[in-house]
Amino acid sequence: MQSIPRVLKGEVLDKPPVWFMRQAGRFLPEYRALRVKASFEQLLYDADLSAEVTLQPIRRFPNLDGAIIFSDILVILQALGCGVTIPEGGPRLTKTLDQIDINASLDESVFEPVQAAIRKVKAELPPHVAMLGFAGAPWTLLAYGLEGKGSKTWGRAKAFLHQEPVKAQAWLNRLADISAKLLNLHIGAGAQAVQLFDTWAGELDPEDYRAFALPAAARTLQQVAGAPKLFFARSGHLEPALASLPCEGLAVPWQLDMAEARRAFPGKVLQGNLDPIALLAGAPTARRKARQIVDAMKGVPHIFNLGHGLVPETDPAVLAEVIAEVKI
Amino acid sequence: MQSIPRVLKGEVLDKPPVWFMRQAGRFLPEYRALRVKASFEQLLYDADLSAEVTLQPIRRFPNLDGAIIFSDILVILQALGCGVTIPEGGPRLTKTLDQIDINASLDESVFEPVQAAIRKVKAELPPHVAMLGFAGAPWTLLAYGLEGKGSKTWGRAKAFLHQEPVKAQAWLNRLADISAKLLNLHIGAGAQAVQLFDTWAGELDPEDYRAFALPAAARTLQQVAGAPKLFFARSGHLEPALASLPCEGLAVPWQLDMAEARRAFPGKVLQGNLDPIALLAGAPTARRKARQIVDAMKGVPHIFNLGHGLVPETDPAVLAEVIAEVKI
Repeated sequence: MQSIPRVLKGEVLDKPPVWFMRQAGRFLPEYRALRVKASFEQLLYDADLSAEVTLQPIRRFPNLDGAIIFSDILVILQALGCGVTIPEGGPRLTKTLDQIDINASLDESVFEPVQAAIRKVKAELPPHVAMLGFAGAPWTLLAYGLEGKGSKTWGRAKAFLHQEPVKAQAWLNRLADISAKLLNLHIGAGAQAVQLFDTWAGELDPEDYRAFALPAAARTLQQVAGAPKLFFARSGHLEPALASLPCEGLAVPWQLDMAEARRAFPGKVLQGNLDPIALLAGAPTARRKARQIVDAMKGVPHIFNLGHGLVPETDPAVLAEVIAEVKI
Repeated sequence: MQSIPRVLKGEVLDKPPVWFMRQAGRFLPEYRALRVKASFEQLLYDADLSAEVTLQPIRRFPNLDGAIIFSDILVILQALGCGVTIPEGGPRLTKTLDQIDINASLDESVFEPVQAAIRKVKAELPPHVAMLGFAGAPWTLLAYGLEGKGSKTWGRAKAFLHQEPVKAQAWLNRLADISAKLLNLHIGAGAQAVQLFDTWAGELDPEDYRAFALPAAARTLQQVAGAPKLFFARSGHLEPALASLPCEGLAVPWQLDMAEARRAFPGKVLQGNLDPIALLAGAPTARRKARQIVDAMKGVPHIFNLGHGLVPETDPAVLAEVIAEVKI
């Protein structure tokens, strides 16, 4: 078995496995070269192109232990008929969720290219590299789905939870079921671990997080079987209630001490948590901070990663140094 | 003495005093009416206009216990020669701090209108209302000063801390001394309590926060005398090390449970922490959440406020209901 699923099942390895959120993306010159020829949406919905983008970091960094399939959390809103485009300025929806019938059928053909891409990537992966699937968590999907684009305050989505609690709950349930379906499709196509991304978890107050977002994420995770699961709540503060989620691992944001997270979540495998911006400070700083994280997690299962996605300004050479540091 | 400084000195009042971050601002129709006639910069640097804007919420909401002077955290960068303008899209600097000689003199005349405004407001305030001063914390000022505008990642500023640690430390010290000077000027002009805003505290990893931002904030606070002090670290997670800051109060962001913050910081007076977006959900939701916060703080000194600033979409009538709930 590959090292990432082994660690998620509780094994402590001498050197942690490593992968990076957004490792398939704009910081790589070979990705930017592809993007000159194809739009972001073409990369998403053409299995050959998605597979190629997924494999780019694996070819460049032979010590990576995971290949996360190139896709986007908003494919679920696309399958619901929201008409998603993702220009450089952030996603845009032509229809928001409140303009869509909650019983409208799901266009599952939207998910086919990513399944085909997973199969293609799997056929080419070196045996030590785990295939990783992912989906957006229900609250994050609802937030984008109601705002129709990114937001500084998510005011419309947050107010909707209280102004239309029945509709909000119905949508959270439906989104939870769809994200579970998508993760199971990824596993069916060959994913050996999956991550659920709750990117806007940190926007809610604790009451609303516990009332809406967390039960919806649990509903997704409960329905996913066949591979170990990671949950990423992007928040400076991890709710103690995350300990009860039905998943093996928690991805930790960079604002938290891993040593503190280790004390707070003794029952979870932790992944993380280098600040992606530490890589802009240069290799010595990035290596030193990576080393601190690895050292803080000695003796318990740990997957090395960032505390958020790589930024486009990242120098791939610095990333290579961080990988080397983790694998020393 | 007014209720806000009384509570900051440790008194437990039957009903908490209340004020709101950004209570003088765009959510008020009377503010927007003024802005039709004057630019944001005119409001900042004309003492009569600043005083008028400061008094607007006091006139509309007679139960407010604090009047925070209308100003901006970036006046310090303006006094250093950064050429700050603040259009709707966020602040812009014509010169970043790395283009400025760290020994260049400070144009203290920039601070004169705000002192004059504080004196004017004081002369008109009802006796129960405390005059509040404020300044930006050194790390937040350095972040804007190096980026030249707002940023999603603060990559340039964060990398600078490691690439130019000597310069970064020198600037943090200088900014700390200037922010202390400004807070002391506010107190000299009549402020009865002051708040230091570390808006971008939550961007740093714990190591950098403890190494750079926190000691610089402490350096500011140490030099401020004559009125009780509040510190606001805008972060989903409050560093335990904040307990040691030389200030009476901590302003708590909305992502944290007040009950949890109360346990974590027994030695600090806590202020907060309603999510400003809860007001967009309507009066019943906002009142219920405000009540929970007040109840969680029964028996200890507490200043009611938001966990971040009011947003322009806020309905003043809902704010009035929240004040009524706190004062029941």
